[in-house]
This record gives sequence, structure tokens and C-alpha cells, in this order.
Amino acid sequence: MIPLAEVLAHPPATAQAAAISGEDLHALVRQLYPICRSITGDGVRQTLAVLQEYLPGLEVHEVPTGTPVLDWQVPREWNIRDAWIKDRRGERVVDFRQHNLHVLGYSVPVRGTFTLAELKKHLYTLPEQPHLIPYRTAYYAETWGFCLAHAQLEALHEPEYEVCIDSTLAAGALTYGELLLPGDTDEEVLISSHICHPSLANDNLSGIAVATFLARHLLGQPRRYSYRFVFAPGTIGAITWLSQNVGAVARIRHGLVLSLLGETGAFTFKKSRRGTAEIDRTVALALREAAAPHRVVDFEPYGYDERQYCSPGFNLPVGCLSRTPYGQFPEYHTSADDLDFVRPEALLDSLHLTQAVMHMLEANHRYQNLSPYGEPELGRRGLYAAVSGRPNAARAQLALLWVLNLSDGQHSLLDIAERAGLPFALLQHAAELLLAHDLLAPLAD
Amino acid sequence: MIPLAEVLAHPPATAQAAAISGEDLHALVRQLYPICRSITGDGVRQTLAVLQEYLPGLEVHEVPTGTPVLDWQVPREWNIRDAWIKDRRGERVVDFRQHNLHVLGYSVPVRGTFTLAELKKHLYTLPEQPHLIPYRTAYYAETWGFCLAHAQLEALHEPEYEVCIDSTLAAGALTYGELLLPGDTDEEVLISSHICHPSLANDNLSGIAVATFLARHLLGQPRRYSYRFVFAPGTIGAITWLSQNVGAVARIRHGLVLSLLGETGAFTFKKSRRGTAEIDRTVALALREAAAPHRVVDFEPYGYDERQYCSPGFNLPVGCLSRTPYGQFPEYHTSADDLDFVRPEALLDSLHLTQAVMHMLEANHRYQNLSPYGEPELGRRGLYAAVSGRPNAARAQLALLWVLNLSDGQHSLLDIAERAGLPFALLQHAAELLLAHDLLAPLAD
Amino acid sequence: MIPLAEVLAHPPATAQAAAISGEDLHALVRQLYPICRSITGDGVRQTLAVLQEYLPGLEVHEVPTGTPVLDWQVPREWNIRDAWIKDRRGERVVDFRQHNLHVLGYSVPVRGTFTLAELKKHLYTLPEQPHLIPYRTAYYAETWGFCLAHAQLEALHEPEYEVCIDSTLAAGALTYGELLLPGDTDEEVLISSHICHPSLANDNLSGIAVATFLARHLLGQPRRYSYRFVFAPGTIGAITWLSQNVGAVARIRHGLVLSLLGETGAFTFKKSRRGTAEIDRTVALALREAAAPHRVVDFEPYGYDERQYCSPGFNLPVGCLSRTPYGQFPEYHTSADDLDFVRPEALLDSLHLTQAVMHMLEANHRYQNLSPYGEPELGRRGLYAAVSGRPNAARAQLALLWVLNLSDGQHSLLDIAERAGLPFALLQHAAELLLAHDLLAPLAD
Repeated sequence: MIPLAEVLAHPPATAQAAAISGEDLHALVRQLYPICRSITGDGVRQTLAVLQEYLPGLEVHEVPTGTPVLDWQVPREWNIRDAWIKDRRGERVVDFRQHNLHVLGYSVPVRGTFTLAELKKHLYTLPEQPHLIPYRTAYYAETWGFCLAHAQLEALHEPEYEVCIDSTLAAGALTYGELLLPGDTDEEVLISSHICHPSLANDNLSGIAVATFLARHLLGQPRRYSYRFVFAPGTIGAITWLSQNVGAVARIRHGLVLSLLGETGAFTFKKSRRGTAEIDRTVALALREAAAPHRVVDFEPYGYDERQYCSPGFNLPVGCLSRTPYGQFPEYHTSADDLDFVRPEALLDSLHLTQAVMHMLEANHRYQNLSPYGEPELGRRGLYAAVSGRPNAARAQLALLWVLNLSDGQHSLLDIAERAGLPFALLQHAAELLLAHDLLAPLAD
Repeated sequence: MIPLAEVLAHPPATAQAAAISGEDLHALVRQLYPICRSITGDGVRQTLAVLQEYLPGLEVHEVPTGTPVLDWQVPREWNIRDAWIKDRRGERVVDFRQHNLHVLGYSVPVRGTFTLAELKKHLYTLPEQPHLIPYRTAYYAETWGFCLAHAQLEALHEPEYEVCIDSTLAAGALTYGELLLPGDTDEEVLISSHICHPSLANDNLSGIAVATFLARHLLGQPRRYSYRFVFAPGTIGAITWLSQNVGAVARIRHGLVLSLLGETGAFTFKKSRRGTAEIDRTVALALREAAAPHRVVDFEPYGYDERQYCSPGFNLPVGCLSRTPYGQFPEYHTSADDLDFVRPEALLDSLHLTQAVMHMLEANHRYQNLSPYGEPELGRRGLYAAVSGRPNAARAQLALLWVLNLSDGQHSLLDIAERAGLPFALLQHAAELLLAHDLLAPLAD
Repeated sequence: MIPLAEVLAHPPATAQAAAISGEDLHALVRQLYPICRSITGDGVRQTLAVLQEYLPGLEVHEVPTGTPVLDWQVPREWNIRDAWIKDRRGERVVDFRQHNLHVLGYSVPVRGTFTLAELKKHLYTLPEQPHLIPYRTAYYAETWGFCLAHAQLEALHEPEYEVCIDSTLAAGALTYGELLLPGDTDEEVLISSHICHPSLANDNLSGIAVATFLARHLLGQPRRYSYRFVFAPGTIGAITWLSQNVGAVARIRHGLVLSLLGETGAFTFKKSRRGTAEIDRTVALALREAAAPHRVVDFEPYGYDERQYCSPGFNLPVGCLSRTPYGQFPEYHTSADDLDFVRPEALLDSLHLTQAVMHMLEANHRYQNLSPYGEPELGRRGLYAAVSGRPNAARAQLALLWVLNLSDGQHSLLDIAERAGLPFALLQHAAELLLAHDLLAPLAD
């Protein structure tokens, strides 16, 4: 029998991850930061190779250019070696080697001399943030371009510039990574992060790092659910994965898209299209219990890959966990989204939150009260303080009463936590105590 | 294919009514104002004759006195030619020819000399608004009376007065007008306005004028629904119409009672008894989109003819659109509800709102997303900006995504507008674009 | 036919109880206060004997020690004659005869001399309320103890004290009282109050007194429901009653636990586990109509005997009515919960509220509008003011319209009162008027 005092002292699940530090997460972000990623190409492969150092079971999939994927086709593969704009002295005034954001993503190769006026049609800047390089792509338009600080643009006064983009856009493959952690059941939890952005730390090396360390954490835990981690390019990668994994899709019970989890802003949880799915309620509860500032917002069909998972044909219970949402912080999609912007402690808090969510999903069972007529006599089982009459019942005793009262076959621990306003862990341990005393029976999920 | 830019520039439906001015509406109010209406009689006939000038198809129905109508009977017909109170010098101190409110509606004929004390039992005033004539009726009590300014009453000091009410209350008919505008289906929208009040401009010449010009507007539009306009005396008129039109009643899908729409107060929409009918949600959405001050209130069984349409046996989805509700403005049911109280611009805004509501009802279809697994590739169809990465998606693109995401057979455009918080017209045009690209299919309503 | 004026003047139901005064209630509290009650024993029997003076039909049940009752067993019976702590001069420094709270409830007998240190292990005080004696019990732990003012404890300086508790804990019975007032149907309303506390006036002589006078009130009324009053020890008493009355349990349609109703704090109604039961809505409405400060709170599985009635196997529609809840007033479970703390006017208001609730339950019928198409003509039946046109309809007329409008077979008077925002009694009398005019028919409940 578990003594009551021990239940109260039971450490929260997230503390078990104490061995992982924010620095560990940040180190992975630093390792991935220099790589020039896009929706296809060697940058994605290099990224996944790094992740395999952390997750040896991670499988890398290559889907050939032209493969039909849902309403789309896998595009040509893009690779880039160098790019620059040189002035008449031959100096690189814009240089891909200095920052890979300088090239418009998916630029076709170009080599030649352009008048400044012609060149300017291919230049992207942020006049209101004149010292930052914007992040721009043109995946499905056959064009080329450079992104640069507006201050750089204003310094261009020569009549002509020499331009080079040494890229290839050719048949190849779309690459994604996938890791399945089998559990006691083949019901799956999907964790998905986009890996298509070049040197942007928060967007989305933060999500990748949290997902990676969440996987490492779960590897060391007993698992009721199987966990599927997908590291894929945004939109086309999720679409490709969905089209290639119809079987897995049918087994997804819960899912999270992880993105923008590295800065110190409040958490934002965007609910799944269903709005009241277990994952929606679980993340909301975990955020309330974390007692940190947060927002829970309704689904909308713009954002990250929840767009695909929550398309009406799939309608999966997949939400999106972020901190400050896309477009709502000034560093978003600029060169200011760098290694300093992402903070070890923020990454670690994000990891802990995802761990708490997974812990709740794992533990969210329904039970049947085996003594449902009146309260069972807790006292003779040592579950009730012997001298009573005090004004306030201990929370642990209240937890026992709530679990007994609502374990009528209709309510899960999550339901009980929402209604009782008591911590999920306290109710979970109350359920364990009651199970140990044959006052509860587990119900099939 | 409709270009995106054109969609964004698409003019709102109400602008198509630019040819109608507030003055047009006010001119009709002015034309009807002098007529002495009641629940029966020649004033109603004269009023309908004026409306026929605007709506040549308007049919006038006469239902004989004594006809059983639901729980009631058509009452005797009341007509009045003159009425006065004369002092000893023979001067009319109260004169029906000066204002038809001076006679208690449905007064029986009287001729004689009364002591001031006897006379006062038949006089109605507003002591707190001493310069206004009240509006009073006694349809179902065989009595007579005069309404006058309290100041007039206080000026009566003679011991006796000569009194005349030259009215007739005799077998005749109850008169109402009806106009049916056939549409593509025989499902009907009912527009109903009471026409039983004498010289009161807001109550309800305003509603009559808005209904008349709404009918003229719809005459020039393609119509999915058939529209039935009923101009009838309050209560007994609606009851009479209901009892005589059981077939039409069964075809009513939406309805509005129009009343008190001429002054500049905020709109008030009183929902149907159902509370969540499509008309209830549509008017509420139109009011939100109009971004004007307004209130949406629950049904209650007092008010205008929605009382009859929403009686439990019929329970029709008919709400009531007004501006300031009855009894809540000081001019209500007094001689101050005059031609100055009613404003051209207020009438026009009211008309535009009803047009917007009808436009939404017409356009509120459900669609099936034909590419429901993942998002369809909008880019290759020219539906997506080519260079992406900007922080905010254009609202037009968001509208496309919302329509795709929720067009699962369960959601109408109204549902989508409520959930997306985007203008109905933007979603409607998104749906048209997607239909044109075979990404949506219309569903039977 | 009942004239409208009479309906408006109809006195509220609670005024019929004018013959009962707050003093009557307080007198009963005073009579019961000195008795030393516990969950078993002669104090309970004496208490029920007093109640039988008020309620001659009250039956006293004795359930033998050891009887299995649900998950529990009836405990040994406890009786106490005397208890004291004497100093070396033989003076009683703690004396049961001065206050029966001085003995820890269910103390086993003890006689001997203890060092102060040993004695202190058996002493309970309230250091933060140093002049009050706490109330403590140890029903299911074989121990003994004294409760005393902290100031008394601090005055103990002698090395040893002589101690005596002259109690018996032996096979006997658990005693409870039960009164059934038969009604027109065998559907029952359960009123339950705990009677296990010794000299505590608010907890729960107040509840006992209100229940007793409610029963006396109902004895003089026609009754649709049968009313079952249970006066039983907390927890084990309710469990015993439930286990012995399975047949009655099945007939319970509504129920209230009455407790803590004697001080002047705001009412607190704790809803049943169901949350939307008729009793839940009725008490909430009665509280709103009483226009007194109050709170309506959700069920939780801690509190009084609603814990047992609302255990998941029974899940009865039983709420708990109190004023300031347990533990939330400083006098709670101390010697300050005395005869001064309980006020006659508070007891009377509590009684009136319970009477109003029972009156609503009795009168809460559903009706069928027999003239559901349009409004029936109220005027020709004398139900409508003859001269209309005034800005506000009288509330009595509005009540007629609401009852007609919602009497579609789906709505009870309670439903109508909630939706109309009109007093229940006004709607009830409107229904009586309409019944008298054959405009309504009663529906089977």
C-alpha cells in the first residue's frame, strides 16, 4: 500500500528530466543553425544526419521528384553552393557565405551583369527593419532573388552589378525523417516539426530541438502509446508524409505540431480543428497547471502543418504548440531570429511542457468505482485522517473523493481534473491508491 | 477564372442599391402620413393603393367581418369622417381634422353635450409630455374617446362641451396587401409590416417604406427564394393572414417583421422564438458586419406580429428588426412620432441592412471540398501569392483556406463566417473562386 | 373566473407561514442545544424524542451495531456520562459538565494519572482562537482526548493530572429518525439533516429546526409529492438509511440536505452532482426571486450527506442548502457556534426559502396551449386591458403571453420562469387563469 504522505510527495513527472539541461537543447540548435535548409536538398539531409546522432532510430526517407502526393507533386530538388552580388571592384556586397538568408529560397541559377534598376526587381528588404535580412522563398515560381538589409540596398549606387546564384533545381527527392517509438498499443501520438527553414533559430530549430529531446525522454519511459516523430519540410513535407502513411494516419489518436518554442514569450496553444479533442483539453490543462502566462486559441486554417493534419479529409486531433505565434514578434522571418534570440531556459521549459502533456495523455484512463453506493469507508483502509473535524479536508483526501465520485465509467482523469480543479498528478496518484485498495477497476480505453 | 484582385475589389451587395435614396423612402412616408389608418377601414385601403403605385403586383385582400380567423373573428369595419369637441362658442377645441390621433381608435359614434366631468372620462392625455397627443385604441371595447395634449385638457374650464364622433362601426371587411415575388424555389422568405397605425411616421410608415423598397430591390435581382411581403394590420391582420394562408406558412424558411426603422437609434434585432434559426444568425452577422451599434435580444411574446408568427403552433423562424424598440423612445405612440422624427438616412441604412440580410440568405450555401485531404495546391491554380514568407496572409487567401477547411458538408457559408470572423462577402467570393477551379461542389440545401 | 386584479394581489406562498416565528425555531434550537449528540448513543435518542414532540409521526429506527451498511458496518454505540481533568487540588480544570465539546467524540474510557507531557498528546486546542473549544471526533480510531481552549492549555503547569472519561463504547445501535408525509403520488422529496453534532447551534440544530418546521408547514398543505424527512447522523447515518431504504431511494425525485441555516450569512446552494436537476434549478430560481445575496456552487464530493446521496451509484438529485459554508466562518466547529450565533430571523428566512422551493416543486407542471396557432383572443375573455396602446404591457399580461407561448409540451413553469425572467408565482397564476379559461390543459408529469 502506498502511504498517503508518499503520494503527496510524489515528484512531478517533468522533474524526472532533470538530466536534460537547456544548454543541451541550445547546443543542438547551434549545431543545426549554419545549415542552409529548404523544402528539399542536401541541407535537409545534413540536418537529419545530425538528428540521427541524437536519435539513432531516426529513418530518413527520400521521395522522388514528380511523385504525386495528394493534390501536389514532389517538386524538383534545390541545392545551392554560392551566391553573390559583386560591385565593380569585384567585392561581394551581398554574400550567401555570410548568411544563407541572402538568397531567395528556390532561386533558379543566374549569372550575369544587371543594371541596378533590373537588379532591384530581384531584391527583397525590410524598410522598417533596415538592418535585418528578410527570409523569403519562391518555391513554385521560377525566379531568382536576393534578400538583404535595407541599409545594404540603400548603399547600392553603381549603375551595374555582377550577379551569381550557383544553384541547381533538378529532379531529385524530397527528404524527411521519421522515428517510431513503439508502445504497448499501436495507437499513436504524432509529433511533427517543420525542418525547411535555413538559418532561423526559433523558426524552427527550437521546435526540432524540443521534439528531439522529447523523443529521447520518451525512449526511457514505459509507453502506452506509440509515438511517431516526423521531421519534414513545411506543407509539402507534411503532405508527402500524409500521402505515404495512410496506415499510420488511421492510428493517430493525438498529435502536436511543435514550432517557435525557443524564445521567452508566453505559450500559445492552437487547438485542433475539432476544438475539444483530448489533446486540446490536455494541453490547456497542462498550461493551466504550469501556471505560466499562456493563450489557448481556436484553430484556423493558416499556420504550420496542422493545416494539413486538420484538413477536412483527415481532421486529425493535432494542435500546434508555440510560444509567441508566427508574425507576432519582430524577429520573425528575419536574420534577427538567431542563436541569441533562442534561450536555453525557454527551450527547457518548452520541453518540460511537452513532457507533462505526454505524461497526462499516458495516464488519462477511465476507472470504475467498485464501491459506488455511498462513499467507501476510507478510514479502515488507512486512507483517511483518523481525527477529523478540521475545517479543511486535505487536498489529497479530496482527490480520493473526486476520483471515487466521478469514476462512473463516463469520466477520465482528465475530465475529473477539469471538474475538480485539482492537479492531474494528484488525481492520478489518488487513482493509483484506490486501485491498490481494489476500490477502482481500470476500464478499457 | 476570376482574378484575386477582382474578388477583393468586389463591391458589397448593398452598393447596388445606390439608385435608391433616403429621400425616396421618406417621400413614401410623407405620402402615407396623413391617412387615418386603423385595423380596418378605408385608411388601410388608401394606404395599400399608394403602395400599389410602387409595387404594381401587390394584391389587396378583403376578409369579411365575422370570418373566423384562428381563435378570433374579423371585427366590424371602422371608418371615421370627423370628430370634435366644441366649446360654447362653437369652436373646435379638439379637432380630428387637425390630427387623426385625436380620436380613440375604434370609437363608436357619439353626438351630444357632456359635462366636463363626464367628458373627462373619455379623454386621454400624457401629463408628463403635456404638449403631445397620445395614440390610443379600443378595438374590442364598445366605447369612445379623445386623445389630446395635456395642456389642452387643462385649458378646458367650461361646464359643458358639445361632442361629436362621426364614425361608423359596421359589417365590412379587414383589408391586407400581399406581394409574392417568385424565386427559383418555392421556399419563402416572409417580410411583414403592420399598417394599422394612423399618423405615426416611425410606427410604422418606416417599416412599410423599407419593406416596399426592399421588394422593389429584390424585383431586380435573381432570387433563389420566393419572397412574400405582407402589409396587414397588427395582430388581427397577421392572424387573418395566417389563417388564410396555411399553404404559404408551410413554405416559410425565414422571415422578418419590419417596424420602427426610421429614426437614428441603434438597430435592435429580436430573434425568433427558435433563437438559433438561420435568420437569427444571419441578421446578427449582418449587424456585426455593418459595424454599427446594435443589440440582439431574445424573443419574448410581446411586441409586433412576430408574436403571431412565433406562436407555438406555428413557431416560424421570424424575427423582428427595429431600431429603438417600442416604448423606449419618448416619441413612441405620440404625435411627436412625426415626419421630422423619421430621417431619410436612417431609412436608407435600414433598407441596406435588410438588403444585406437577404443577400446573405440567398448566398448561404453549403459546399463540398473536392480535395479534402491536405490543402489543394492553390499556387499552381494562381490562387496563391508566388513569393511567400510574409508575416500576414492576405485575408483573401485566408478566406480560401477557411472555405476549403470547413466545406465538409456540415458547414454553410454562414457557419464559416461565424467561425472565421471574416466578412461573409469575402467568403462567398472565395467559394465562387474555388467553384470555378473545381475545388468545391455545391451541395443541395 | 379569477379576476386579473386578484391574481396580481395573490400573496406569495411563504406568507402563509406567518404563524411560525423565528422565535419558534430558535426555541427548538435552545431545547436541543444542551444534549450531547454523537453518531450513536442516547444523545441522538433524546434529540429525536424532542423532535417527536413537534412531529408526532416521526419514527425512530435503531440499527444494531455490526449491521453491514453498504461498504461500512454500523459502529459500536458510544455513550458518555462524565469526563474531567483534575489538578492536584482535585479541581476540574477541564470539565465535560461545563461543555460537552470538551471530550473528543468517541473517546474510549480512561481513568488514571498522566504526566503533563503524556496528557498533552491527547489535548486539542485552537492556538489562533485561544478562547474557543474546538469540536473534534475520532469515530474510527480507538483513542481518547479532550478539547479545550488554548488559554486553558497554557494554564496547565502541574507535573501530573488526574484524568477521567466515563464513557462506554459497546454493542448497541445507530439511531435515526424518519418522517414520511404521503402525497398524491409516491414520488418523493427527500429532506435530510445531520443530527450527530453535540452543542453546536448552527451545525446543525439550525438545519434540524428548519427541517422540522418545514415538515410542520407541509403537513398543513395539499401535497403532490410525498415528503421524506431523515434526521440521521452524518455520513454513517445517511449510509445506513440508504442501505435500509432501497425502495424509497428509487422514488426520490428531488432532495435537499439542510445544514448551517441559522446565522445571517448569505445563502449557499451547492448543486447536486447532476448539476441541472430540477432541484438545482428550482433552488437557484428561488434564491434569485428572494433577491437576497447568495451563491450557487457546483457539486463537490466533500461536505454533508449529499456526498452519499450523490455517490455515483445513487446519483440522486439532492443538493445542499446552507448559509455560510462549513469552514468559512470563524465559529465553525468551535464553542462559539452557540445559541447567540444562531438568529431567529435567519432561521425564519431559511424556512421561508425552503417553503418557497417546495412550493415551486409542487407547482412546476407542464401545460399544453389549446389555442397554439396565433395568440388566443384574451380580450374577449376579460384577460386583456381594454384600452391599449400604452408603452408597457403589464407584467401579468406578459405572464399570460409567456405561458401561452411556451406551453408547447416541452416547457415546465420552471423553464418558462427561467426564460421569461418573471416571478414563478406570477406565471403559476397566469397558468391557473388560462386553465380556468380552457386555454391550457395540464400534461402528465
